[in-house]
Amino acid sequence: MTVAAKNSVKTAAKTSVKTSAKTPSSKPSKTLLDDLVLANKILFHFNVVDAFGHISVRDDRDPQNRYLMSRHLPPGMVTPKDIVTFDMDSNPLTHTDVPQMSERYIHGEIYKMRPDVISVVHCHARPLIPFGTAKGAKLRPLTHMCGFLGCGVPIYEIRDAGGQTDMLVRTAPLGKALAETLSDKAVVLMRGHGATMVGKSIQETVFRAVYSMDNAVVQMQAHALSAGGEVEFLSLEESEKSMGGRNVPRSWSLWKHQMTAGS
Amino acid sequence: MTVAAKNSVKTAAKTSVKTSAKTPSSKPSKTLLDDLVLANKILFHFNVVDAFGHISVRDDRDPQNRYLMSRHLPPGMVTPKDIVTFDMDSNPLTHTDVPQMSERYIHGEIYKMRPDVISVVHCHARPLIPFGTAKGAKLRPLTHMCGFLGCGVPIYEIRDAGGQTDMLVRTAPLGKALAETLSDKAVVLMRGHGATMVGKSIQETVFRAVYSMDNAVVQMQAHALSAGGEVEFLSLEESEKSMGGRNVPRSWSLWKHQMTAGS
Amino acid sequence: MTVAAKNSVKTAAKTSVKTSAKTPSSKPSKTLLDDLVLANKILFHFNVVDAFGHISVRDDRDPQNRYLMSRHLPPGMVTPKDIVTFDMDSNPLTHTDVPQMSERYIHGEIYKMRPDVISVVHCHARPLIPFGTAKGAKLRPLTHMCGFLGCGVPIYEIRDAGGQTDMLVRTAPLGKALAETLSDKAVVLMRGHGATMVGKSIQETVFRAVYSMDNAVVQMQAHALSAGGEVEFLSLEESEKSMGGRNVPRSWSLWKHQMTAGS
Amino acid sequence: MTVAAKNSVKTAAKTSVKTSAKTPSSKPSKTLLDDLVLANKILFHFNVVDAFGHISVRDDRDPQNRYLMSRHLPPGMVTPKDIVTFDMDSNPLTHTDVPQMSERYIHGEIYKMRPDVISVVHCHARPLIPFGTAKGAKLRPLTHMCGFLGCGVPIYEIRDAGGQTDMLVRTAPLGKALAETLSDKAVVLMRGHGATMVGKSIQETVFRAVYSMDNAVVQMQAHALSAGGEVEFLSLEESEKSMGGRNVPRSWSLWKHQMTAGS
Repeated sequence: MTVAAKNSVKTAAKTSVKTSAKTPSSKPSKTLLDDLVLANKILFHFNVVDAFGHISVRDDRDPQNRYLMSRHLPPGMVTPKDIVTFDMDSNPLTHTDVPQMSERYIHGEIYKMRPDVISVVHCHARPLIPFGTAKGAKLRPLTHMCGFLGCGVPIYEIRDAGGQTDMLVRTAPLGKALAETLSDKAVVLMRGHGATMVGKSIQETVFRAVYSMDNAVVQMQAHALSAGGEVEFLSLEESEKSMGGRNVPRSWSLWKHQMTAGS
Repeated sequence: MTVAAKNSVKTAAKTSVKTSAKTPSSKPSKTLLDDLVLANKILFHFNVVDAFGHISVRDDRDPQNRYLMSRHLPPGMVTPKDIVTFDMDSNPLTHTDVPQMSERYIHGEIYKMRPDVISVVHCHARPLIPFGTAKGAKLRPLTHMCGFLGCGVPIYEIRDAGGQTDMLVRTAPLGKALAETLSDKAVVLMRGHGATMVGKSIQETVFRAVYSMDNAVVQMQAHALSAGGEVEFLSLEESEKSMGGRNVPRSWSLWKHQMTAGS
Repeated sequence: MTVAAKNSVKTAAKTSVKTSAKTPSSKPSKTLLDDLVLANKILFHFNVVDAFGHISVRDDRDPQNRYLMSRHLPPGMVTPKDIVTFDMDSNPLTHTDVPQMSERYIHGEIYKMRPDVISVVHCHARPLIPFGTAKGAKLRPLTHMCGFLGCGVPIYEIRDAGGQTDMLVRTAPLGKALAETLSDKAVVLMRGHGATMVGKSIQETVFRAVYSMDNAVVQMQAHALSAGGEVEFLSLEESEKSMGGRNVPRSWSLWKHQMTAGS
Repeated sequence: MTVAAKNSVKTAAKTSVKTSAKTPSSKPSKTLLDDLVLANKILFHFNVVDAFGHISVRDDRDPQNRYLMSRHLPPGMVTPKDIVTFDMDSNPLTHTDVPQMSERYIHGEIYKMRPDVISVVHCHARPLIPFGTAKGAKLRPLTHMCGFLGCGVPIYEIRDAGGQTDMLVRTAPLGKALAETLSDKAVVLMRGHGATMVGKSIQETVFRAVYSMDNAVVQMQAHALSAGGEVEFLSLEESEKSMGGRNVPRSWSLWKHQMTAGS
């Protein structure tokens, strides 16, 4: 983590404490709600999530103090009316009479720590599980679509933060420990559980979730094909240079097209 | 197997002998029938079963002495009118003029031995086959969705019970031997054949069938990725702690939604 | 190959020489045509064939001297009017003005040699390719659905019969060499090409094609999981005992249901 | 590269310089446009491309100096009105007010160097990635469908041509270097990126893209099954002999049928 990142993290942590618990007086923008619902559908379509997993986004009415996420529901069933407003301590400000995701602290604690993050995905994507459990294995970028993996993919060991648990990040301290393990990276793997991705928009975070999974599939094949020999990954410079550009909007336009055609 | 489990097994075995063969005078509850038919569709949808495999549930009119299961049919074709009532010796009490599953003894014998079991799935799910045939391989829980594997997954060797056979559990003694191998566990693998899962409800048993398969896929990848090195599984405590909660109803709500949308 | 098999092969080879080339005066039975068209659809649905591959059946009007197979078409596009009648030298007796499968000799030559065979599938099913090309690998039955693999799966090396070729069985001598390699078995793999399956009915041959592929997928996983260690296959006796029964009609009933629901 | 190939390359390179930048006065033939749009759909259907990748064809009005390709769009969304005319320096002559593919130089530079090439596919097909990144691995033909791989599959290392980049072939010199690595072959792999295929028609190039991917999947399995032992590939003579024939039109007829049925 760079010094600049550390400082911005500190500032964010301070400001986020001011979160008030009052009910929001207006609705989030329709575009944001629609994108969040669409993101749920896309993540389900590509098997990033099954009945479990969730995506959140900072609330555009008060991005420093609130975020939006579905109530306790499988992502494939989420509609606009299921979107809850949370404060940064992950207390629901709406929909207070229905069950909420027990792992919402993943989202709130990352937003507190990372002012640069606008959206968070938590998932159990199957191809990512081996990279969190096979000792010595490291998820690394094999193609330019996955440059965001280049700066490293830490692994969260919940035993270090909570001892023997049911594996769920169901408290603020466990969420904070996850955010600290994530640090300034794009993806954190969670041993025996899944992964969490962050990005500067819903679109970028969904893109990172889909392509993390993609990279995992191909990387397992590359290691098998090399039979334990050398595999050539992107260099750090190649990773950084390939992260920008038109990849995210182009993927999003296709996925939106596919989800709409299928409905 | 714990002492408590052994005792409850003995009691169950005794009571089940009293089963009478008279035809049931009423119909099972519509909810139970609907759930059983839906379970057949879900198992087929997720490739837990193909043309083969079956799911049963204790009959809610007389759970100690009867169970319900489809007549001899591929699970993907089962409708409510195909559901047969069996006694615990696996004699059909209805639909006596049509062919029955030759392996129904799997179900009856487990119900006799395990009073805690409400529903049983038998399947040939492909990813589970290697774990029953590769010497030394053990199916173990890689994520918190599969904590139910944590107490161990025994392997049934039909040669021990029946010598050289056609591999089918087509008699009560073979079924009893399978139930004894299963013991107090959630899943038993069957060498050269498939697997059998049990649970406290149709929903839980279907969940265990789907996620056993899931764990198998991911575990094979983890072993390959570690290239024979160490893989970190859930600890026994983590397995036990992660088994409760809202996982089963949440999955079921999605699967029901999917099956209904698809019809 | 047993002595009995050898004798029946000799007899068959002699009688088949009498085949006359006259055009058939009636149509094959509608049931047979419908089953053959359905078989094409099933093989395509399960990726046993893609644009390539074919299935034939002995003509029920003159089973010793004629067989039925599609004209040169992808199996997924075959309709009843595309079914050609061939003599056992693989000359078309109908549809003589359109292109025919260049590898029809696979079918004719097997029918000549194997009077017990009623239907033949030739395919390029992907999971079977490695078993024909990886030195030392042997396709063997892992479950009771695949007992038909128990008596052995020979590999056809076209170089032995034809030297350096385009790999296609496009002459009678190449077809005869394949039939000789198949001998009295159910499946023959073809190095650098695919596989050919035979059976006592369209239904059985399709079943063997689908489950050969299935066994290949699972067997590759079992070898990987055992990391080169021992894998337990069905014994020869288990293979033989598990081959009969209700497996084939049950699968066929499901597949027919699926193909009809999808049309 | 043969002497003949080298000479034709030189001639092509010279003539292509004469390309004029004037706007074309007529439309490309409807057949060519329809085939190009269909090719986009097929490549998307078979996961050769996702949101990324493209296919071009020489413009039948002026094949030496122009080619046709979609504007910047995911292939699955391309319609006839999105097809742009480019000169051989990859300048758009139509649709000049919309974004173009940044990697169009792949196409133009190959057309300059290879007068025999009529169509080019660039893709990120996942199963091909390991063969470009696992040191020592070589993509080689396992079946007669993939004879076109027999003459060798070079790997393009963009660092040799451009140092540390964003991995994209976004300039003419990088495209020229790729064309030189491709040389007179059918397929070139691109380290950390994907692959590029060429052929004598849209149909042949799409066929090569689909079956390259197919061969990669099966070859990885064959190496795993042989556990590092020997795998038998097609000989060079077998590769050459198996490349002609009716494979391409037969596949195309099926794919066209599938794409039309799905619309």
